[in-house]
Amino acid sequence: MSKDYPATGGAGGPGGIEILIGLLSKLPGLGPRSARRAALFLLKRRESLMEPLARALMETSANIKTCSICHNLDVNDPCAICTSPKRDRSIICVVEEVGDLWAMERVASFSGLYHVLGGALSALDGIGPDDLAIGNLVRRAASDDVSEVILATNATVDGQTTAHYIADVLADAGVTISGLAHGVPVGGEIDYLDEGTLAAALKARKKL
Amino acid sequence: MSKDYPATGGAGGPGGIEILIGLLSKLPGLGPRSARRAALFLLKRRESLMEPLARALMETSANIKTCSICHNLDVNDPCAICTSPKRDRSIICVVEEVGDLWAMERVASFSGLYHVLGGALSALDGIGPDDLAIGNLVRRAASDDVSEVILATNATVDGQTTAHYIADVLADAGVTISGLAHGVPVGGEIDYLDEGTLAAALKARKKL
Repeated sequence: MSKDYPATGGAGGPGGIEILIGLLSKLPGLGPRSARRAALFLLKRRESLMEPLARALMETSANIKTCSICHNLDVNDPCAICTSPKRDRSIICVVEEVGDLWAMERVASFSGLYHVLGGALSALDGIGPDDLAIGNLVRRAASDDVSEVILATNATVDGQTTAHYIADVLADAGVTISGLAHGVPVGGEIDYLDEGTLAAALKARKKL
Repeated sequence: MSKDYPATGGAGGPGGIEILIGLLSKLPGLGPRSARRAALFLLKRRESLMEPLARALMETSANIKTCSICHNLDVNDPCAICTSPKRDRSIICVVEEVGDLWAMERVASFSGLYHVLGGALSALDGIGPDDLAIGNLVRRAASDDVSEVILATNATVDGQTTAHYIADVLADAGVTISGLAHGVPVGGEIDYLDEGTLAAALKARKKL
């Protein structure tokens, strides 16, 4: 009976709840305590949630591929966006992660193509240009179809460093390079805004 | 491209990330946003986390049984606690849920047996005595081995109602019925304590 005691009086082995809790606690947003709660929640809903989740994990792991063109995740390679006849092939939006691509798609106001870098340059984490999908992006930008590259990396130091680096690399590619506008978030309150955003919004002020 | 758009340009079907995110978002502690994050986190760690988690869910779902004596969860029925020769068979600690049993075991200062009710009486949620494992408890308490029943239900209205109900039911069973002490939590600060706890601690004050 140790402090890690989760469940079964030490009866581990196959089907051990300890293993399940340990794996669940590795998910972002779940600590040891919430992993225990999630495990119990699942054990109460075996047929309606636990087994479907196990199957979904297995199938997704087996079926989801990384698109060889834009590095999006999809059941097909190339992905549904890269192969869609409805997308504007002249604009490529560069994002750090697949989650950023999903966020852009939820907005539903961009109809071009994407390029997922797989992260951002970071001296601290030892991530250099060779660790990101930048060479691939340069080749795509050199194609005749492409007229604009939108750099939609995060507005963090690493994200902006990455954007500047890519802008330099693409300087001779003959494409327009643009970035997302900075400013007051829609619905945002001035009083709660950080100084950097407020300064950027002020600098980029527009005539009404 | 709807607001629910999570991943693949509408390419659902087998292996669809949407399904996985939907299932993950049903776990306690994970909302839609953190479920998306968890799904991406898993897809980046297929061999080290995603597939082991799928297997652990499958195996746990298949192997874990509810103990027919105390309603604990274990790979064996009766569970490791009920069959352990090291446990004191004269004391039964009554808890609402398996998670409470785990919490008691982590403390490692109780060596008796347990009885998991499967919830608490609740007029609001329509949970009556027949929905809980109370009949089973009465039969266990009537056994000659048992001399004490500790009611360790939650210190909530429902938990305390349940404790009083069980104390009534067991009144003629010839066993000592006890409850957990109320008082100042160890390490707790008086200033931050609720009035109910403070009143209980004052009432149960001890000579030093």
